[in-house]
Amino acid sequence: MDLTLTQDGLRAIETLLHDSIDSEVELLNDASRHILSSGGKHLRPHVALLAYLAAGGDDLHEAVSMAAAIEMVHTATLVHDDINDHALLRRGRPSVHARWGRTFALLCGDYMFAKVYELMAPYGPTYNVIMARACTQLVEGETLQAVAAKAGAIDRETYKRIVALKTASLFEGAARMGALLGGGDERTVEALAVYAYNLGIAFQMVDDILDVVGDPAALGKPVGTDLAQGRGAFVAQNGKTILGLQPAADGAAVAEVDEEDPIARMMSKLRSSGAIEAARLQALEMIDRARLALDDVPPSPARDELLSLTNDVLNRDH
Amino acid sequence: MDLTLTQDGLRAIETLLHDSIDSEVELLNDASRHILSSGGKHLRPHVALLAYLAAGGDDLHEAVSMAAAIEMVHTATLVHDDINDHALLRRGRPSVHARWGRTFALLCGDYMFAKVYELMAPYGPTYNVIMARACTQLVEGETLQAVAAKAGAIDRETYKRIVALKTASLFEGAARMGALLGGGDERTVEALAVYAYNLGIAFQMVDDILDVVGDPAALGKPVGTDLAQGRGAFVAQNGKTILGLQPAADGAAVAEVDEEDPIARMMSKLRSSGAIEAARLQALEMIDRARLALDDVPPSPARDELLSLTNDVLNRDH
Repeated sequence: MDLTLTQDGLRAIETLLHDSIDSEVELLNDASRHILSSGGKHLRPHVALLAYLAAGGDDLHEAVSMAAAIEMVHTATLVHDDINDHALLRRGRPSVHARWGRTFALLCGDYMFAKVYELMAPYGPTYNVIMARACTQLVEGETLQAVAAKAGAIDRETYKRIVALKTASLFEGAARMGALLGGGDERTVEALAVYAYNLGIAFQMVDDILDVVGDPAALGKPVGTDLAQGRGAFVAQNGKTILGLQPAADGAAVAEVDEEDPIARMMSKLRSSGAIEAARLQALEMIDRARLALDDVPPSPARDELLSLTNDVLNRDH
Repeated sequence: MDLTLTQDGLRAIETLLHDSIDSEVELLNDASRHILSSGGKHLRPHVALLAYLAAGGDDLHEAVSMAAAIEMVHTATLVHDDINDHALLRRGRPSVHARWGRTFALLCGDYMFAKVYELMAPYGPTYNVIMARACTQLVEGETLQAVAAKAGAIDRETYKRIVALKTASLFEGAARMGALLGGGDERTVEALAVYAYNLGIAFQMVDDILDVVGDPAALGKPVGTDLAQGRGAFVAQNGKTILGLQPAADGAAVAEVDEEDPIARMMSKLRSSGAIEAARLQALEMIDRARLALDDVPPSPARDELLSLTNDVLNRDH
């Protein structure tokens, strides 16, 4: 049966993700399935499938394994991130690190990376080069972020570079592979890649904003952790917060705080300083660029759905 | 210029490994080159190149990128292993973990895994499936080892399963890919795969023996660490050592020790108990199987070199 509906495609991806976890080592199955079944948004594979359809593809089966690989990369990096961030909660459940400990979380992430190879093997050189590039950039972004967090300093340029590498690259890779598989011409492939790149940047900016103003229950994790750990758009530095989205010299971006409970007070100051609104405007600018890119994509229900995703990303609360 | 000599091929691999580390993030270059330039034996890529030649290949350029990918996988797992083992020394130099800390060691390993994709991308599905399988098994072996170490117990079957997964699988994958690239017929490919699998098991057994009887200066790392951490052929358990190579009921394999400085005393007892000789016999048995497999490979200088490698593995001191 041909797969033509995105929802059916997403279900096929979820099934494949679970079926591909088939280790003879039970612990790897348990830990991998724990994080895979924790209700991720599947936004990256969603973009991959829609790009495939928008580029003219008519059987989502062709894209399911690639889109599952994209989600698997993302999930593996979450497991490794939670080690480095000492995160205890992920999507409202104990992180793999919290439940199985560091050693097994590291191996669980490595196992899922190995499964990415398996899922990508059928596609051949062009696609594997795109995937390799996305994975490399993702790790580079995580590394730059850790360097900045350690230095306790981040400026606007560094923040944008980090977001482009650690988040936008995988979105872009998902769309580029989907569009190529769908048989899109060069103009369509590039347009969908530009769309996804900018959507990815906006997605990460909103993520960083939610770390300050989000509802922990909706997010399934505590807020203020990026701030406390020197990550994200708002970085605590010497009792001030620096807004990575704006030059530090901008008055709205810096909030002085007391020594006591500095994170909570910084969050409160950020909320009333206008910094959040400034950040939202930046995210909106990226969303506008994403929408503009869709002008170069032929009209289709999939293109409408890609347009509608931009609203979901901008208005999400988790 | 055609590459026909193994030594030239190994130099080409070393060059490619270094050239492929080209991140815009300096820390990733520094950490990756630190471990890559620390003088590894390059045994796995050596097997890959020889399998290529023994199967009839006549231009090693074809196999260089694959063989480099094999070495890159191995190196990435060393970096991650050293995190989990808290190892401070690797090949006589500080481990990446010791020098850059856990967060960056984890990301450095992930970066090198991403580079494996890039190196393997040109080869297409058949080869990427073999590589994916080898990577998966490697992680499974590491996980089983960590499970056994945590439980403080290992039996002969578990030990052999761990060694097959964590070490022999990558040797086998290297030979299988090399033989296929070299255009070997099915019988030759299988023979070279069986050779490498058994060579890999013997290599790991000798490694575990060297942890007890080796010279730390020659090894570039302390001895007794596997024993202390419940890994390898000899596992400390309740003040006794259990020899993974022999059923625990075998008197020669169990050495009771004092509570004071238990590891040093266990090592001493192991050396005088006959357990080391028993383990060497097991390694020799695997080497014999490797040699036997070469009977199904057409005679050639490369086959002679593969035969000679079996002696190197058995008699190595580091």
